Amino acid sequence: MPNIMTHGLTCLQRRDLERFGARIGHFGAHFAVVDAEGQILLRHDAGRFASDTEAVVEAGRAVCEAVRDRAETDDEGRVWRFCDGHVLLAAALCLPCNGPGCVRLAGAMVVDLGAEAPSADADAMRVAYLSEMMRLAAQGLRDAVRNDEQMEKMGLELAQVYEELVLLHKINTHMKVTESDGTFLQLACDSLTDIVPVEGIAIVLERMVEGERRFMVAAGSGLIDLSPHMTAVLHSRLAEDIRRGQEALLDSEVDTAFRFEWPQSVRNIIAVPLCAKGPQEARSAGRVQNAVAIIGYMVAINRIDKPDFDSTDMKLFASVASGCAVFIENGRLFNDLKELFVGSLKALTNSIDAKDQYTRGHSERVAIISQWLAERVAERERLDSEQIHRIYLAGLLHDIGKIGVDENVLRKNGKLTPEERECIQRHPSVGAGILRGIKQMQDIVPGVLHHHERVDGKGYPEGLTGREMSLTAKIVGLADSFDAMTSKRVYRDAMTVDQALDEIRKGLGTQFDEKVGTIFLESDIYHLWDRIQGNGPSAYGGRHLADYGTTAVGTLLR
Amino acid sequence: MPNIMTHGLTCLQRRDLERFGARIGHFGAHFAVVDAEGQILLRHDAGRFASDTEAVVEAGRAVCEAVRDRAETDDEGRVWRFCDGHVLLAAALCLPCNGPGCVRLAGAMVVDLGAEAPSADADAMRVAYLSEMMRLAAQGLRDAVRNDEQMEKMGLELAQVYEELVLLHKINTHMKVTESDGTFLQLACDSLTDIVPVEGIAIVLERMVEGERRFMVAAGSGLIDLSPHMTAVLHSRLAEDIRRGQEALLDSEVDTAFRFEWPQSVRNIIAVPLCAKGPQEARSAGRVQNAVAIIGYMVAINRIDKPDFDSTDMKLFASVASGCAVFIENGRLFNDLKELFVGSLKALTNSIDAKDQYTRGHSERVAIISQWLAERVAERERLDSEQIHRIYLAGLLHDIGKIGVDENVLRKNGKLTPEERECIQRHPSVGAGILRGIKQMQDIVPGVLHHHERVDGKGYPEGLTGREMSLTAKIVGLADSFDAMTSKRVYRDAMTVDQALDEIRKGLGTQFDEKVGTIFLESDIYHLWDRIQGNGPSAYGGRHLADYGTTAVGTLLR
Repeated sequence: MPNIMTHGLTCLQRRDLERFGARIGHFGAHFAVVDAEGQILLRHDAGRFASDTEAVVEAGRAVCEAVRDRAETDDEGRVWRFCDGHVLLAAALCLPCNGPGCVRLAGAMVVDLGAEAPSADADAMRVAYLSEMMRLAAQGLRDAVRNDEQMEKMGLELAQVYEELVLLHKINTHMKVTESDGTFLQLACDSLTDIVPVEGIAIVLERMVEGERRFMVAAGSGLIDLSPHMTAVLHSRLAEDIRRGQEALLDSEVDTAFRFEWPQSVRNIIAVPLCAKGPQEARSAGRVQNAVAIIGYMVAINRIDKPDFDSTDMKLFASVASGCAVFIENGRLFNDLKELFVGSLKALTNSIDAKDQYTRGHSERVAIISQWLAERVAERERLDSEQIHRIYLAGLLHDIGKIGVDENVLRKNGKLTPEERECIQRHPSVGAGILRGIKQMQDIVPGVLHHHERVDGKGYPEGLTGREMSLTAKIVGLADSFDAMTSKRVYRDAMTVDQALDEIRKGLGTQFDEKVGTIFLESDIYHLWDRIQGNGPSAYGGRHLADYGTTAVGTLLR
Repeated sequence: MPNIMTHGLTCLQRRDLERFGARIGHFGAHFAVVDAEGQILLRHDAGRFASDTEAVVEAGRAVCEAVRDRAETDDEGRVWRFCDGHVLLAAALCLPCNGPGCVRLAGAMVVDLGAEAPSADADAMRVAYLSEMMRLAAQGLRDAVRNDEQMEKMGLELAQVYEELVLLHKINTHMKVTESDGTFLQLACDSLTDIVPVEGIAIVLERMVEGERRFMVAAGSGLIDLSPHMTAVLHSRLAEDIRRGQEALLDSEVDTAFRFEWPQSVRNIIAVPLCAKGPQEARSAGRVQNAVAIIGYMVAINRIDKPDFDSTDMKLFASVASGCAVFIENGRLFNDLKELFVGSLKALTNSIDAKDQYTRGHSERVAIISQWLAERVAERERLDSEQIHRIYLAGLLHDIGKIGVDENVLRKNGKLTPEERECIQRHPSVGAGILRGIKQMQDIVPGVLHHHERVDGKGYPEGLTGREMSLTAKIVGLADSFDAMTSKRVYRDAMTVDQALDEIRKGLGTQFDEKVGTIFLESDIYHLWDRIQGNGPSAYGGRHLADYGTTAVGTLLR
């Protein structure tokens, strides 16, 4: 049995009905549309109905009630004849509405033919023709409504697809390796949920941390349970569905019961995989050439505006997820390369530091101290993060020129000969020479070349004064001295931090730049001390410092 | 005046007209549709026309001709009355067709009412009602055609947008930094022209070669003039249009004359820019933070299936081009980083080589010789390109352990003391130790550690035999010896190539691996000699060798 609803008429429907009224007006008939409540929705009689309005309203309402109560909507073509002095014809105006088999009763068309015709034949003829015309008019209206519906549906689909197009375009144009994971993945989530509204969305990535699988929420919004347990469960359920040939995990209690047990708040859920080429081991062993690994997934719960996620949603999720996977893979490769580079620089500077047992780890410590000091300077004056990163690298590479200095000279316990002194004092120039050969390192050169200059002009190799020295050289020079003083040397024990600070204080304005030195002395040195001893809070611990190096390398590229 | 065309009826139109015929059959009227050539397109009379067929055909044809000749299509509602014993009503069936104001004459509806009614009044009434019903039927048909057209148009648009969606998805998923420029950009061109057919398409990139602007065709297909002159002209015209606030360059002679002069073959042309962040100088100077530079463009000529490129095409071109620009920028950054890394390795190995004036450039030459030899080996047995690249890097880094060896020992002219010999012989272990600290360098370690081993077990540091040595160690060891022999040393002049080859021949099976040594001796050594002297053909010249290093570094990442 069809579902009958009552609604008014649209402007276009009124217009079509008014035209029909005008048409049958030529045959001396008057026309009205009356709804189930007895309201006259429109009339075409120039304001003067041949019969009294009450009879017309009564006929219309009677037909509406008959149709509604007896569910006679399938009898679409039925025309009722009323005769009470005047001849009235009435037919229900049943229009299709959303959903198959659903019609709505817009009202009843009532045609008033006036007094009965002189002959019964003529009357029957008039009634037959007008009834047929009413049927044609009702049919036309139904066709128009069906068409409008189809057009509206296609229009909505078109609008949706255009939105999807804009989304993919947006993802395309943001897929830059310089964009951070967090920014890009959040953009993907936000743009996706602009089109597919949900109560919660997240991107979860799998990471190996100390040989253990961990799931990390990389982006997302809304209410969604992402406990470590839930993220792992989701991953394994999705992986199982993918193994079975599905493209996504979909589960809801809309049509059937849930396949899996979910937290109370979940009504429906979708998860699509982020895939990348197989893991390193499988590939290098040459066994699996194009193996695809699930590196994470995008999950969303509780579709808004629809009872469940449908196949259109799924395709869009899958498309966005594959873009995210490509982005993450690009970022991973880029980062690996930066790590490789920084790792190589550290390995080499360490091997140079290792020529003298007392300077082991010196270069990395000077890098960390230089960065710390640059950050403190940045709190007081303009110094952008790119410059801070370059100061870090200048610190790391400041002794690279010692590559050419004899170990025995470096380790010598006792006074150096003039030749030995000259040999050691060549290391800033040698280092600068090495870096000058590398296009992207140009900005690092002055920091390396001048880290043994003094503001009083008594340094080497060029005897620059403070006004001629770059900020980088002043910072790296101070960092170098601080680490040297606080490290054990062949000719003396390590100073305490306080002793070293005293020495720096004494050297302000002669060996060290007043401003830079003062900033250093006023900073929280013990915090720095923890950092370079590797005892700092985890935020400043190993991972953070390693990231710092890769970020620093990134700033060498433009 | 509308443009009238004659065509048949669609299935749905026939069905609607047959239904109408059945309807008026209830009133004793017979129905037919006749086209301009007098063909009966359909009839509803159960095979027995009350009037003779000729009269019906004649009436239909007469109406068709009247409408066609007198262009009375605007009089859509006109019904002709013919009376030749039988009363015939005929009306033209003018249906909308593609394009505004365009109608086509599908034929004429003919209604046969049979003999005239007994009374003139009754006859007039019948004629009036049936004429009105014919008008309603014709109107319904016209509405249906208009709807079908709109639906078809939306359907085509929808199909197009879906194709665009698939295109952007494809571009998304291929935007990997590991994909080569050529492959990706060609995919972009091909996928785009699958949707937007054109006679020619190309992606042109601007490159600075020795300080000069050059335009390089990076991908494309079809007939399109891409002479150096044309690519430069296109670039400047596009840049001018972009400066004026346009999103693209569009030019055609469809509506107006060309704005620019183009080669004869061009009927219409589109060019969209590939944009990236501004050039290095502008950005580092801090002047232009988000300056956008045109790094190239995508151009296409002669739209197929449409008179000209339209705004939909333009948006799609712009979207694909922006994806290409992001891809190129990512690739450039990735490549810059690889170059930076390789450049740094070379700078450092050079600085180590420079400790001994006679080994200047040694590491890079050994890398080139090792690569050459590995390529020759690959011609005879399975050796994939990743391995060849790693052999190159092992060659480059084989002496990295000399970082810790005293210059005076390296340069010593005369017999070494046992301590000095021990010091020098430590360099493979020191080098391997440095590289072991770098995760991605593990595969390089054995080549560096064992490059002074001999197949007869008399080498150092471990005294391995040929069966225990890796292919890399055998190759790098031979390359190292060949370069040492052909370079001047403090204690002797350089050998000629032939002398060096003789030495290698003598050492086969003792110092050198038989198979590797034989492959080397049988190769085109003078070609290699040109390469390491930097006199080779340009394909093996500077640029090629530099690319080789960056590719090699790429293989360290997975």
